[in-house]
Amino acid sequence: MHTKKKYSILEMVLWTRFETLLFLVIIVIYISGYFFLDLQWLKIPWTPLALIGTAVAFVIGFQNNSSYGRIWEARKIWVGIVNTSRTFGMFLQDMITSEYCQTTVDEEQIKQEIKILTYRHIAWMTALRYAMRTTKPWETILKQRTDREWGLLPPEMENKLENDLQPYISKNELDSISQKANKQTALLYLQSHHLRKLKEKGLIWEFSFLELEGVLQELFTLQGQSERIKNFPYPRHFATLNHYFMWVFILILPLALVPQFGEIGNEIATSNPVIGKFFVWATIPFYIIVAWIFHTMERIGRTGENPFEGSANDVPISTIARGIEIDLRQNLGEPIDSIPMQYPEKHHTQF
Amino acid sequence: MHTKKKYSILEMVLWTRFETLLFLVIIVIYISGYFFLDLQWLKIPWTPLALIGTAVAFVIGFQNNSSYGRIWEARKIWVGIVNTSRTFGMFLQDMITSEYCQTTVDEEQIKQEIKILTYRHIAWMTALRYAMRTTKPWETILKQRTDREWGLLPPEMENKLENDLQPYISKNELDSISQKANKQTALLYLQSHHLRKLKEKGLIWEFSFLELEGVLQELFTLQGQSERIKNFPYPRHFATLNHYFMWVFILILPLALVPQFGEIGNEIATSNPVIGKFFVWATIPFYIIVAWIFHTMERIGRTGENPFEGSANDVPISTIARGIEIDLRQNLGEPIDSIPMQYPEKHHTQF
Amino acid sequence: MHTKKKYSILEMVLWTRFETLLFLVIIVIYISGYFFLDLQWLKIPWTPLALIGTAVAFVIGFQNNSSYGRIWEARKIWVGIVNTSRTFGMFLQDMITSEYCQTTVDEEQIKQEIKILTYRHIAWMTALRYAMRTTKPWETILKQRTDREWGLLPPEMENKLENDLQPYISKNELDSISQKANKQTALLYLQSHHLRKLKEKGLIWEFSFLELEGVLQELFTLQGQSERIKNFPYPRHFATLNHYFMWVFILILPLALVPQFGEIGNEIATSNPVIGKFFVWATIPFYIIVAWIFHTMERIGRTGENPFEGSANDVPISTIARGIEIDLRQNLGEPIDSIPMQYPEKHHTQF
Amino acid sequence: MHTKKKYSILEMVLWTRFETLLFLVIIVIYISGYFFLDLQWLKIPWTPLALIGTAVAFVIGFQNNSSYGRIWEARKIWVGIVNTSRTFGMFLQDMITSEYCQTTVDEEQIKQEIKILTYRHIAWMTALRYAMRTTKPWETILKQRTDREWGLLPPEMENKLENDLQPYISKNELDSISQKANKQTALLYLQSHHLRKLKEKGLIWEFSFLELEGVLQELFTLQGQSERIKNFPYPRHFATLNHYFMWVFILILPLALVPQFGEIGNEIATSNPVIGKFFVWATIPFYIIVAWIFHTMERIGRTGENPFEGSANDVPISTIARGIEIDLRQNLGEPIDSIPMQYPEKHHTQF
Amino acid sequence: MHTKKKYSILEMVLWTRFETLLFLVIIVIYISGYFFLDLQWLKIPWTPLALIGTAVAFVIGFQNNSSYGRIWEARKIWVGIVNTSRTFGMFLQDMITSEYCQTTVDEEQIKQEIKILTYRHIAWMTALRYAMRTTKPWETILKQRTDREWGLLPPEMENKLENDLQPYISKNELDSISQKANKQTALLYLQSHHLRKLKEKGLIWEFSFLELEGVLQELFTLQGQSERIKNFPYPRHFATLNHYFMWVFILILPLALVPQFGEIGNEIATSNPVIGKFFVWATIPFYIIVAWIFHTMERIGRTGENPFEGSANDVPISTIARGIEIDLRQNLGEPIDSIPMQYPEKHHTQF
Repeated sequence: MHTKKKYSILEMVLWTRFETLLFLVIIVIYISGYFFLDLQWLKIPWTPLALIGTAVAFVIGFQNNSSYGRIWEARKIWVGIVNTSRTFGMFLQDMITSEYCQTTVDEEQIKQEIKILTYRHIAWMTALRYAMRTTKPWETILKQRTDREWGLLPPEMENKLENDLQPYISKNELDSISQKANKQTALLYLQSHHLRKLKEKGLIWEFSFLELEGVLQELFTLQGQSERIKNFPYPRHFATLNHYFMWVFILILPLALVPQFGEIGNEIATSNPVIGKFFVWATIPFYIIVAWIFHTMERIGRTGENPFEGSANDVPISTIARGIEIDLRQNLGEPIDSIPMQYPEKHHTQF
Repeated sequence: MHTKKKYSILEMVLWTRFETLLFLVIIVIYISGYFFLDLQWLKIPWTPLALIGTAVAFVIGFQNNSSYGRIWEARKIWVGIVNTSRTFGMFLQDMITSEYCQTTVDEEQIKQEIKILTYRHIAWMTALRYAMRTTKPWETILKQRTDREWGLLPPEMENKLENDLQPYISKNELDSISQKANKQTALLYLQSHHLRKLKEKGLIWEFSFLELEGVLQELFTLQGQSERIKNFPYPRHFATLNHYFMWVFILILPLALVPQFGEIGNEIATSNPVIGKFFVWATIPFYIIVAWIFHTMERIGRTGENPFEGSANDVPISTIARGIEIDLRQNLGEPIDSIPMQYPEKHHTQF
Repeated sequence: MHTKKKYSILEMVLWTRFETLLFLVIIVIYISGYFFLDLQWLKIPWTPLALIGTAVAFVIGFQNNSSYGRIWEARKIWVGIVNTSRTFGMFLQDMITSEYCQTTVDEEQIKQEIKILTYRHIAWMTALRYAMRTTKPWETILKQRTDREWGLLPPEMENKLENDLQPYISKNELDSISQKANKQTALLYLQSHHLRKLKEKGLIWEFSFLELEGVLQELFTLQGQSERIKNFPYPRHFATLNHYFMWVFILILPLALVPQFGEIGNEIATSNPVIGKFFVWATIPFYIIVAWIFHTMERIGRTGENPFEGSANDVPISTIARGIEIDLRQNLGEPIDSIPMQYPEKHHTQF
Repeated sequence: MHTKKKYSILEMVLWTRFETLLFLVIIVIYISGYFFLDLQWLKIPWTPLALIGTAVAFVIGFQNNSSYGRIWEARKIWVGIVNTSRTFGMFLQDMITSEYCQTTVDEEQIKQEIKILTYRHIAWMTALRYAMRTTKPWETILKQRTDREWGLLPPEMENKLENDLQPYISKNELDSISQKANKQTALLYLQSHHLRKLKEKGLIWEFSFLELEGVLQELFTLQGQSERIKNFPYPRHFATLNHYFMWVFILILPLALVPQFGEIGNEIATSNPVIGKFFVWATIPFYIIVAWIFHTMERIGRTGENPFEGSANDVPISTIARGIEIDLRQNLGEPIDSIPMQYPEKHHTQF
Repeated sequence: MHTKKKYSILEMVLWTRFETLLFLVIIVIYISGYFFLDLQWLKIPWTPLALIGTAVAFVIGFQNNSSYGRIWEARKIWVGIVNTSRTFGMFLQDMITSEYCQTTVDEEQIKQEIKILTYRHIAWMTALRYAMRTTKPWETILKQRTDREWGLLPPEMENKLENDLQPYISKNELDSISQKANKQTALLYLQSHHLRKLKEKGLIWEFSFLELEGVLQELFTLQGQSERIKNFPYPRHFATLNHYFMWVFILILPLALVPQFGEIGNEIATSNPVIGKFFVWATIPFYIIVAWIFHTMERIGRTGENPFEGSANDVPISTIARGIEIDLRQNLGEPIDSIPMQYPEKHHTQF
C-alpha cells in the first residue's frame, strides 16, 4: 500500500516510460507516412472514433470500479481477521478458567494453554499470508519491469514459510501440517481439537466451547473469502476484451488525428508557410497524451485487480498480520523487547 | 474458468469469426450499392446515430455489470460452500464424542459415524453440482459453434450422477433419494435424521446438535442461492432489448458511415483520383471494427450471464467441490493415494 | 418469468405496435408541415438536443438499473422463503420427538403434529402469494392492451384464496384468520401458539422451541421484505420525471431531425432532383427507430418495476410456492399422486 | 408517498412554475440584448458547453442515485421495524407463561403484562416517528411554496407527542421519559426493566429473557439506523457543488444557444426575411425545455434526499406505524372498533 | 459535518480562490501568446479534447461515488457504535443482578459495578475518537490554507487524550493502557476481565456473560471497521491518476479554447472590428468556469475521501460520542448538571 498523498509526476513518468516510447514510435510512423510518403488520403472520420472512445472509456470505467471493489473487499476481509483475532485473544483469556474444574489446576498451566492457542493462531495467520502471496498465472505485475523495479518484494517472498512457522507451533504439529494441501485449514482443525481437549478436562465450560468453535467458524469464513479473492481473478473474458478494445482505439486513433492536424497545418500555411508545413508533427505530444490517458486508465485497473500479488498497491497483509501479533502478545503480557517489530515501510510502501 | 492472463488475439479472432464474416457481408452489400448502383443519396445524418450508439454502449455497460455481478455472486456462494464444508468437517470431528454417553462406545464406531456423515456431505455436493450443470432453455452457449469448439465439457456432462454418488452413500439411501425431485434437499434431510439418532444415542450433546442443525440450515441457504442463480436468468426482457438495440445500431451504421468515407473519397479525388474513387471501400475495416466492438461487448455479457452453463467462463464448481473433498478426506486421515486427484485443467480452463 | 433465450422479433413488434404507430403519426405530421406547408424554418439546432438525449439515456439507464435491482431482490427474498421452508420442514421432523416426554406418546400422533404444522406453513405461503398478486394503484401493466393480450393470468387471479387455503388448515382456523387484515401474520401467530403447546406437552425440547421460534422470526422477515417490494413502488417522482423527459425528447426530436434530412435532400437534389425532393420522407424510418429505442428503453424499465404485478416478467412466485409444497410433502413421505403437480408453463411463461 | 402511477402534467407544471418563469425571464433578457442591443458578438462556442452539460448530467445522475439509495434504505429500515414488531408481539404471547412459576399466576394477569408491554412498544414507535418528523436545518422542502401548497402535513405536525403517547403508557412513565433527551431510548430501557422483573417473578424463562433482550437490541439497531438517515444529510459539499454546477450551466447556456438560433434565423432570412428576423425568439421554448430538464433533474434529487421531511414523497412512517398498531392489537384480541383506523390518504398521498 | 442546506456562494468563492487565480494566470499567459506573439497557429482540434473531457468527467464521477461510499460507511459504523452502546448500557443494567448470588450483595455495590463498566465504555469511545483524529500521511486537507482557515479544529486536536480519559477510568488502568499500542483494544480486554470477575462472583449469570461478551465482540468489529476507514485510504494509484488526468485536461484546454474564441472574434471583426479584435480575451471567464468545474469536482472528492480527517466535512464523531455519553449517564440516573453538555456547533459545523 502506497502511503503518500500521491505518486510523484516523476514516478508516473518512469512507470509508464515504455508505453510512452511505444506511442512515440507509433505516431512517428504514421506522421512519416503522412509527411514523407504523401499518404494524406489515409484517414477516417472522427465522429465514429469518438463513439468508440466513449464506449471504451465507459467499459474501462466499469472495470476499474470492479477492480476497486476487489481491493476494498480484500481490506474488509483482513480487517475482519483483525477483529476476530482480537476477539479470539480476549475470549481465550476469559473463557479458559479453572472455575468448572473438579480437580485444582495450576494457574500457570492455564496461562500456558492460552499461550499455545494464541501462538497457533499467529501460525494460522502466517500460513494464510504466505498462501496469499504465491503467484497465480494471471498475476503478472511482478514480471513487468516498471512495476518490478520500484516495488520491493513483500516479506513472504524473501523468507520461507517453514522458518516463519517454527516459533509458533511445536515440531510435531509442523510436521503434520506440512503434508496437508491447505495448511491454514489444518491449523484450524488443530485449534478445534485442542479446545475440545480443554473442554473435556473441564478447563473450558461447555457453552464457552461452543462460542469458541463459533470463532473458528468465523475464521474459516474469513480465510475462505481471502482465498476467493486470490483464486478467482476478475473474469478473464471481460478483462481481455477491454484490453483489446483499448488497443484498437489507440492504434486507429492516428488515422483520424494526424489528418486533423494536417488540415490545421494547411490553414496555418496560408499565413505562415513554414509552421504550417511542419504543423502535422505537433500531433506527437497530443497523440501521446490521449493514448497515455486511455492506456494508463486501463493499466491502473489491471494493477489493482489482484490485491495480494506482491506489488506496491497490495493490501498490506504482512503489516496487518504483524500488527495483530503485536496486539495479541502485548495483551498476553509479554515484555515489549521479546515481541517482533512492525515491518518497516520501504519507499513509502507498506506490505 | 480461464486461467491465463488473457485470451490470445488468435483465440478472439476464431471465437468471433462468424460475426466478423457477417459484418463483412453487410458492409460489402452496402458499399456495392453505393459504388455500383450509385445509391449515394442513401444516407442518414451521423449525429443522431452517435446518440443511439452512446445509449447502446450505456445499456450494454450496465448489463455487463449485472452479468459480472452474477458471476461474482456465484463465486461467493461456492466459497461459502467451501467454508461451511470445512466447518462441518471440523464440528463433526469434535462434537461427536462419547463424553455424554452413558454406555461405553467404541472409538472406532465414532470414527465410522464421522466418516458416514462426511461422505454423505460429499454426496450432497455432488448432487448439487450435477443440478447446476443441467441445461436451461436460456442457456445456449454450448449450442454456438465457436463456444463449443474450444470449450471442452465439464465432468458432469461426461459422467452420470448415479455413478458419482455410489461411493459416498449406501445402496438404500441411493434408492430412496433417486425418487425425490430435489436430491440435494433429500440428502440434507438424511443428514439431519442421522444427527438426531446420534443425539438420541448420546453421541452428540444436545446443544452441539443444535449447532450442527444450524450448519445444515446454512447449507440449505447456500444450496438455495446457487439454485437461484441457475434457475433465474438475467431478466429476458432486458436482455432481449439490449440485443436488438445493438443489432439495430449495427445495421443502420453503414448508412451513415459509407457516405462519410464517400465524401472523404471525393476530397481525395481532387488530388488523387484513383485512390479517391475507391476510397469508399476503406469503410470495410473500419465498419468491421466498430461493429465488432459493439457486438463483442454485448456477446461477452451474454457469455458470462449464466455462470453454471458448462462453458469455459463458468465458475469452476467441479474443481471447487473436488478441492473440498480432498480437504475433508485428508483431515479424516485417509491415505493420500485413496483420495481422488484434482480435475486437471484442460486448455487453461478449470471446470 | 419468461423462459426462452429471447423474445422473438415478432413478439417485440406486436408488443410495441401502438407506440410505433404513434411515432409514425407524429413524424408524418411534422414532415407534412415541412414538405407541404413549407415550414422549413421550423428547426432547432441538433447539438443541445443531443445533450438532452444523452442526459435522458443516462437517467433511464439508472432507472432500469434500479428496476433490475427490485426484481433481483424479489427473487432473493423468495429463494429465502424456499430455504427457510426447507429448514423448517427438516427442523419439524427432527425436533418434535417423544425424547423429553414424561408420558409415552404415540409415534403416529407426532407425525400428525408435524403434518399439521407443515400444512399450515403451506397455507402461510398461499396467503402470502395471494397478497402479492393483489393490484396496487401504480401497477398498470395489466391494463395495457399489448401487455394483457399475450400475458396469461397468474393462478392467483383465477382462483380464490379461501378455496386454496381450505385443504391446509382446519375450518376453525380458516374462520379466525378470515377476520384479520393480514392473514399471513395471523397464520404465523397460530404456528407459534401451536409450537408453544407442543413444548408445554414436552414434545419439543425447550431450546428447540427457541430455535423454531427463530425460524418463525425469519419467516416474518421474509414476508415483510416481500410486502415491502409490493407496497412501496419505485418512487413516483423519479419515475414521473423520467417518463416526461423521454417524451419531451421524442416530441422535439423531429424539429432537429427533419431539417437534417431536408438538407441532405437538398444536396442530393443537385445530382438527383427527384430523390432529393422526396428525401425528407426518409426521416420516417429513422425517427421511428430512435424514438422506439428511447421509448422501449423506458417502457422496459417500467415493465420490470413491480415484480409481483401478474405480468409475464414477474418473479414466478406461484411456481416457487408450489415447488416448496412438493418438496415438503415428498419429504413427509406422502405418495406422489396425492401431491399437486407443478403449474405448467403457458407460452414459455412461468408464473 | 405518492400512490398514483404518475404525477399529472398539470401537477408538474404547477410544481415547477416559479423556475419556469425564472427561465423565461433569463432568456428574454438575453434575447433582448441580442435583438435590440445588437450584442450578436456575445457568444461562446457550443462544444465546451456540451462537455459541461454532460459532466453536470453525470454528477446529477450519481446524486439522484444516492438520493434513491437513501429513500430505499429508509423503507428497508421501517419494514425492519414492522418485522421486528410482529416478532416481538408473537414472542410476548408465547414466552410470557406461568409454566416456570413456582406460585400459581392468574391467566388474566399474564394477559395484562402482555398488553402493557405491547402498548409500550406502540409508544416507542410513536416517539420514534415524532422524532423523525422534526425539522432539520437542511430540510427545506416545506419552505418552498410549490412543495408546501399541495403537500398536506403529516399527522405528527398536526398533533402533539404527549397526547399521542398518553393512551399507551402510564402517567408515571410519561413523566419520567419527558425529561430524557431521547425518549425512544428511554422507552426501550423501560421495556428491558419490565422484562427483567417478569423474569425474576418466573413469568419469563431465563433463556426466553435473553431472546427478548435480543429483540430489544434489534429495535435499538433499527431506531439508530432511522435516526442516522434523519440526522446525517447527503453530504452538503457534494450537494452544494452539484447545485451550483447546474446553475452555472443554465446561466451560460443562452450564450451558446441564442447565437445558434440567430444563425438559423440568418439562413432563413434569405428565403423568408420576416420569420428569419424574429427567429431568434424561438430560442425561448427550447431554452426553457433544456433548463427545465436540468433543473428538475437536480430538484427531484433534492426532494427525495430526506425521506422523513414531511413532504409528499416521504416514506409513509405514520401509515406504517399505524398498520403495526392495528396488527398488534388485532392479535391481542381487541375488538375491531376499539382499534384506531388507518390514516386516510389525502390527495393520493400516504404519510 | 456541515449543517446548513448549502455552502454560500461566497464560501465557495473563498474556498477556491487560489486555484481560480491560478486558472486566471494560465489563461492570460495563453491568450497573451495568442494576442501579442501571434501564436495563432498554436492550436489543437477540439473533438479529441472533448473525448478526454468526457473520460475525465467519468472517472472523477466514479471516484466521487467511492468517496461518498467511504463517508456513508463511516457514518454507518458510528451509528453502529451508538446502537451497540445503548444496548450495552441496557444489558448492564438488567444483567448484573444479585439473583444468582449465593451471598447477599448490596444493591449499591451492583450500581457501582454498572457505573464502572459504563464509564470504562465511555473511555473506550474517547480513545477511539482520538485515534480517529490523528493525522495520516495522505490526509492533507488541514494543510491547505482555504480548508484550514474556515474549518475550526475538532475537540480532539485541542485537548489531550490522557486528560479526557481521567474522569472515566482508575489511575491504575490509565497507567496500564498508556503502554499499549492500541488503547481501545486494551480497554475492551479490561471490560472482559471485569465481566468475568463479576460472573465468578455470581453477579452475572453465565449465559448473560456470554451475551455480554458477544456485545464486546461487536464493539471490536465496529472499532476495527472504523480503523479500516482511517488506515486505508482510497487507493493512491487511482487517486493519483485521476488527479493528473484532470490537470492534463485543464492545461491543454486553452489550446483548443482560445483559437475557438479567436475564430469567433474574426467573424465578429467583419461587422465590429474593435470587439472582434479583443474578443479572444472573452475566453478568460469561460475557461475559468470550465476549469473550475472540473477542478472543483475532483477536489470535492478528495475533500470527502477521509471522513475522520478533522475537516468541516467529517463524520461528526465528537458529537456522536458525546451524545452517547449523555444518553448513558442520563439512564444511569445521574443529575443533568453533572453530565457534560453537547459540543456546540461552530460556524454551522458539527465535529
